Amino acid sequence: MKETTIIQLSKKLPKLKNPVALIGLPGIGNVGRLAVGYIASHLNAKKFAELYSPHFFNFVVIHENKIHMLRNEFYYWKNPKKRGRDFVFLVGDAQSSDAPGHYEVAGKIVEFLEKLGCKEIITIGGFGIGKISEDLKVYGVPADEEMKKKYKNCGIEFDVTGKVGTIIGAAGLIPGIARLKGIKSMALLGETPGFPIITDPTAAEAVIKVIEKMFDIKINLNQLHEKVEEMYEFVKRMEELQREAMEESRKKQPREELKYIG
Amino acid sequence: MKETTIIQLSKKLPKLKNPVALIGLPGIGNVGRLAVGYIASHLNAKKFAELYSPHFFNFVVIHENKIHMLRNEFYYWKNPKKRGRDFVFLVGDAQSSDAPGHYEVAGKIVEFLEKLGCKEIITIGGFGIGKISEDLKVYGVPADEEMKKKYKNCGIEFDVTGKVGTIIGAAGLIPGIARLKGIKSMALLGETPGFPIITDPTAAEAVIKVIEKMFDIKINLNQLHEKVEEMYEFVKRMEELQREAMEESRKKQPREELKYIG
Amino acid sequence: MKETTIIQLSKKLPKLKNPVALIGLPGIGNVGRLAVGYIASHLNAKKFAELYSPHFFNFVVIHENKIHMLRNEFYYWKNPKKRGRDFVFLVGDAQSSDAPGHYEVAGKIVEFLEKLGCKEIITIGGFGIGKISEDLKVYGVPADEEMKKKYKNCGIEFDVTGKVGTIIGAAGLIPGIARLKGIKSMALLGETPGFPIITDPTAAEAVIKVIEKMFDIKINLNQLHEKVEEMYEFVKRMEELQREAMEESRKKQPREELKYIG
Amino acid sequence: MKETTIIQLSKKLPKLKNPVALIGLPGIGNVGRLAVGYIASHLNAKKFAELYSPHFFNFVVIHENKIHMLRNEFYYWKNPKKRGRDFVFLVGDAQSSDAPGHYEVAGKIVEFLEKLGCKEIITIGGFGIGKISEDLKVYGVPADEEMKKKYKNCGIEFDVTGKVGTIIGAAGLIPGIARLKGIKSMALLGETPGFPIITDPTAAEAVIKVIEKMFDIKINLNQLHEKVEEMYEFVKRMEELQREAMEESRKKQPREELKYIG
Repeated sequence: MKETTIIQLSKKLPKLKNPVALIGLPGIGNVGRLAVGYIASHLNAKKFAELYSPHFFNFVVIHENKIHMLRNEFYYWKNPKKRGRDFVFLVGDAQSSDAPGHYEVAGKIVEFLEKLGCKEIITIGGFGIGKISEDLKVYGVPADEEMKKKYKNCGIEFDVTGKVGTIIGAAGLIPGIARLKGIKSMALLGETPGFPIITDPTAAEAVIKVIEKMFDIKINLNQLHEKVEEMYEFVKRMEELQREAMEESRKKQPREELKYIG
Repeated sequence: MKETTIIQLSKKLPKLKNPVALIGLPGIGNVGRLAVGYIASHLNAKKFAELYSPHFFNFVVIHENKIHMLRNEFYYWKNPKKRGRDFVFLVGDAQSSDAPGHYEVAGKIVEFLEKLGCKEIITIGGFGIGKISEDLKVYGVPADEEMKKKYKNCGIEFDVTGKVGTIIGAAGLIPGIARLKGIKSMALLGETPGFPIITDPTAAEAVIKVIEKMFDIKINLNQLHEKVEEMYEFVKRMEELQREAMEESRKKQPREELKYIG
Repeated sequence: MKETTIIQLSKKLPKLKNPVALIGLPGIGNVGRLAVGYIASHLNAKKFAELYSPHFFNFVVIHENKIHMLRNEFYYWKNPKKRGRDFVFLVGDAQSSDAPGHYEVAGKIVEFLEKLGCKEIITIGGFGIGKISEDLKVYGVPADEEMKKKYKNCGIEFDVTGKVGTIIGAAGLIPGIARLKGIKSMALLGETPGFPIITDPTAAEAVIKVIEKMFDIKINLNQLHEKVEEMYEFVKRMEELQREAMEESRKKQPREELKYIG
Repeated sequence: MKETTIIQLSKKLPKLKNPVALIGLPGIGNVGRLAVGYIASHLNAKKFAELYSPHFFNFVVIHENKIHMLRNEFYYWKNPKKRGRDFVFLVGDAQSSDAPGHYEVAGKIVEFLEKLGCKEIITIGGFGIGKISEDLKVYGVPADEEMKKKYKNCGIEFDVTGKVGTIIGAAGLIPGIARLKGIKSMALLGETPGFPIITDPTAAEAVIKVIEKMFDIKINLNQLHEKVEEMYEFVKRMEELQREAMEESRKKQPREELKYIG
């Protein structure tokens, strides 16, 4: 596996009605992964493709006594409302582990969403504020001016002057690349304390409320706080593994230096 | 050499009967390399292909006064029993030295084994428990549920809850990629103290006993402990070299920093 | 996006008269980016292409509340003088973040300039002297002997013995690669204190004066010092971001070590 | 420039009689570069091709007030003796700065030498012994048994048991890859104190004497010690630059960390 690869679970791609893509990958507070994962699960969205990449970490995770290869997963949901829009969800347990890989993975995702007919892509991420706050804002950073007008009454703070400076990884690069292909795109960033490896359901809730308004859908949030533990056992497991991996890697470092013999 | 390359020693690939692949590459305790190497040598398996990769370390090893390029080697063994299965063995002295390379090498291996008709792939590795133990378990982590049923009476511990969290490198990625191609696969991990660069014949023995049961073959283990030294002179040599390389690389580090000028 | 990509803003490339390319990318004192950006802006040059690369940093910048993907931008200017030469300007907010990427990006740039008919390429950079000086020299380091004769009366110091030893990144590699394709090329390096992330308009001014003489054009420099702040708000923003990113990356380092699990 | 590239200086390749290739690239004591460079210069060999690689350092060197891109250079020499063998020399000022690049560059070199009809390739390197010695040995490490017989009476020590453990970079990988293509190959390693960045003419002399015997050629060594300084002004310059680059890179390290934002 030399390149990022998307594997379709059935030959035909789903036919979608004016679809919008919501993307939630791991990051600060795991806001995106949690929010998009919850929406997809709540709406009973159907998985139809998986993305694998040589730029993900070079280990597999053991989940329920089986090998789980790091991946991103594509789901679709057909909106039962006559004029409602269909959705594509992308959730996953990995981003690229090197800089050029971020561009490769983001490019593959945008290409695939374009093929699915998505004219709009929203990435979800966290914005670390370094403290615990009561009133959590959701910032919107569009790649196109138009998004600002379209979603101006949805509780999104579009003025990020002096707040967000950069967006690292997929949440920023996917809208950047989407714009180059004429696809409207925006990053939605939920405020979160930003302690790196703690999943933050409160920030995810704030983002989901914004998404409800943006697309006129209804998500039952009762289960988010209650079920976050059982639902995201896997997410928590990943958190632990990341911590362990960190310590492992520190202990192993002398061995790792072998790489630098060059 | 820009890509991982498999060189066949003769034009035609061997014709194999319902073959299963056993893979043992360097890792914790060198359990996999030792176990698979011993079985292949004991059964007098025949080498038929070699794998080279730009992702292996950028040095060659001097062995018996000659240049030995780092490689993985494919062997086959034709089972004389009428209904016995044939085997492909993969042993080697290197894994990728960078993360994307692990995916590239694992992908090439799975592709080649698929071409050989392998419907089942077992990777062998070590599971570091950080202490010396009398009763060494062998854990099985399948990529497919099915393997668990098929090999339930072979002394494999399939419940790894709270034990193994991740499998680093080829032992995990090969089953992960094999599953994507519909090939049944599993990692067999032998408990070993896990001091990184010490080859552990006791763990290898435990794994070989499991393999005997899984495939109804008989391996004379008398020679494993006795001959481990002379047989694995090369393996031991590699251990030393890795240690030296480590120290070299530490001493050289200032020079290596040249890389970072960017 | 797996490769460095140049996106033309309109299908047809501009037809240019004996064009010369001036290249100013970020570097010591941001001398090149400032000088070339100022000239392009002053002459009202027209943007006609953008370059993106997976070798740029894996983040996007927020500028005026929108996502700004790191890029290099091509501008052209048609010289109104009958015998005057047309210009291509390349300015940008990023260079490659890894060594092989520098060669890839520089190669793409030279190829594109060749397609545009450029027979001469001048890269602009800074030369850090480690102190503040009154009389700022501008050094010229040609890839071809010829350039020295052609521009001998333009206030360029061509004798760099004991001064410049290497030129890192695009400012050196572009002339190097241009020479291989028979395109005349030279690096112009303006003396600057060289404190890494401080944009130096004084050095840029010295370089612009040289360029005026080289190509018989007139740039009103009154606005350079006055307007450097408002014009280069973005540049300054980038400076801050780089500083923040540095500190972020330091704080995050334990997490980053995940990369080294290998 | 995305790949290692060999540029021929004229369209036709030289027609050579039973040619042998001698390869001297930078390394411990610069033994190979000095020895092969001296022989090529002494025999008045003719340059006919240059190799460039994105895996070389991402800077250019200023030499004689001009930009010098890092490169390897191919020379040929037609032996005037009726039965004498022609030679290809490869000398250069760079090796790959990353591990996979070493394989790519070595692969390109072997391919090109194969095209030139070389049936034999000798790489020259240094073997650091950590002390100053009077009687400098020259070790031979063949990739093929045959070389040992062929050159047994040339003052080469073929027994390296307990001495050399690994050969890092081109000097080892080129013979390794050559063997895969059926080209006879060997590394000749001259003993040298091994202080990394000091060129060692004494070790080079010992190696040249061996080469004289191997191929029945005569090299006037009078000039090696006398002229090493003026001849290798450039080599010395590179040494200094490497030292400076090291220190630069150390000072710059905080900035370099930007790379690790990922």
